[in-house]
Amino acid sequence: VLDRLAWMAAELGPVLTDAVGRIGGLRLKPLMAQALHMGDECHNRNAAATGLLLKQLVPALLAGDTERGALARVVSFLAGNDHTFLNVSMAACKSMLDAAAGVAGSSMVTTMARNGVRFGIRLSGTGERWFEAPANRVEGLYFPGYGPDDAAADLGDSAITETAGLGAFAMAAAPAIVQFVGGSAADAVAHSRRMRTITLGANDAFTLPALGFAPTAAGIDARAVVDTGVVPVINTGIAHRDAGVGQIGAGITTAPAACFTAAVVALATMLA
Amino acid sequence: VLDRLAWMAAELGPVLTDAVGRIGGLRLKPLMAQALHMGDECHNRNAAATGLLLKQLVPALLAGDTERGALARVVSFLAGNDHTFLNVSMAACKSMLDAAAGVAGSSMVTTMARNGVRFGIRLSGTGERWFEAPANRVEGLYFPGYGPDDAAADLGDSAITETAGLGAFAMAAAPAIVQFVGGSAADAVAHSRRMRTITLGANDAFTLPALGFAPTAAGIDARAVVDTGVVPVINTGIAHRDAGVGQIGAGITTAPAACFTAAVVALATMLA
Repeated sequence: VLDRLAWMAAELGPVLTDAVGRIGGLRLKPLMAQALHMGDECHNRNAAATGLLLKQLVPALLAGDTERGALARVVSFLAGNDHTFLNVSMAACKSMLDAAAGVAGSSMVTTMARNGVRFGIRLSGTGERWFEAPANRVEGLYFPGYGPDDAAADLGDSAITETAGLGAFAMAAAPAIVQFVGGSAADAVAHSRRMRTITLGANDAFTLPALGFAPTAAGIDARAVVDTGVVPVINTGIAHRDAGVGQIGAGITTAPAACFTAAVVALATMLA
Repeated sequence: VLDRLAWMAAELGPVLTDAVGRIGGLRLKPLMAQALHMGDECHNRNAAATGLLLKQLVPALLAGDTERGALARVVSFLAGNDHTFLNVSMAACKSMLDAAAGVAGSSMVTTMARNGVRFGIRLSGTGERWFEAPANRVEGLYFPGYGPDDAAADLGDSAITETAGLGAFAMAAAPAIVQFVGGSAADAVAHSRRMRTITLGANDAFTLPALGFAPTAAGIDARAVVDTGVVPVINTGIAHRDAGVGQIGAGITTAPAACFTAAVVALATMLA
């Protein structure tokens, strides 16, 4: 891991910065919209988005003067993992949600994050404050040799994708993902439909072909979660409970309802 | 067109031959199977398959000693059109179907092709003989400035993909294609289900996530077409009726029933 991080800083970063600069930046929302039409949900399935990213980056890389060995290492690294785009997706979702932060009185959820023990959310109208509850277990499929007893509870910052209406919220776009996280293609469609009941609106930039190109549910409303009892669904990797082992499976989990209740109470108190 | 063909012969061909040789060939069936899980049907939608092809070819291209200018031209050409993989898909389908040719007594359709006026099929059990009927019109969406009066009837050899159980037969994999060929996502699913009634079997190598990973319909049985009256459905580009204009839209059409009746009569006569 340390060797890889050092290489990213020394070679990958500068080479990518040069290539992205040469093409004047990458427009990520259209790329993600296209990936949703290609079976990705941009959280646990990024195969199409990774390919679309490569398609833009490789000609830009070739147009520069990076020496050939470095070029081959960078392209092999980017092409070598179908989840390469997840790094970009998370950053894009975080940027979109930060734009919604700090609106007085707003019950829109701007962050959901978990550390394997606790789950925390932040609302637009309650600033930097976290509202926490114990993280839920993940129901899913395990890599060979591992099972539920080895698993940590829900963990990581990638639920920023669901917060932005992607991931499990856009799962109707990605029926093939059920081979990775469990469940059926019908479940995938049902998750996308159900999430629409707890969002403030829908995102016309991101559409779901299997639902007749309906826009994705977007802008989780903590009040709607409390009113309906419907909690946000999350596609996620399953981490081993011991540090250093890494991912041992993938599955589906939910945000705990108690976070939302606490957040709504805090918001009401601020407004009282 | 002539300049492009000359460049393909002089530069693209040799560079690709070198790269494909270096990685010991490309396994196309797994690539196409993956593309079906990424919203392609490998006839009129090849966005994912083109990306998957690039992901294998670019590292192979970089590993050779092709000079940088040629490399940039080849990669830009391959990455510059979402239909790049169609050329590969058609050749792969033709190879698969040629393997089924020449089986005595077999009513399996091994070729469907059209020239804008006539539609022709060949059966496994009737050798090189063509059974023809007038080509049908294509119902679809037109590029701006064009309409049905400008269109040729069904044209081209790309229906080899439907003959192999891809294209419109696998349309349940590609709901987003209806934005290009018309109809709804529900129609796409219905086409894949209906084609299963006229095939000898199904192809476990190619599965449809939206239908619970059901295998694609494969091996059109001319007798089943005649018995049921269900004709093969085809996704296709719409060509202008005047030579040289090129593609003016895309849509859905069918193989004319008369071809199949004639073929079954000929087969029965041979066996009598």
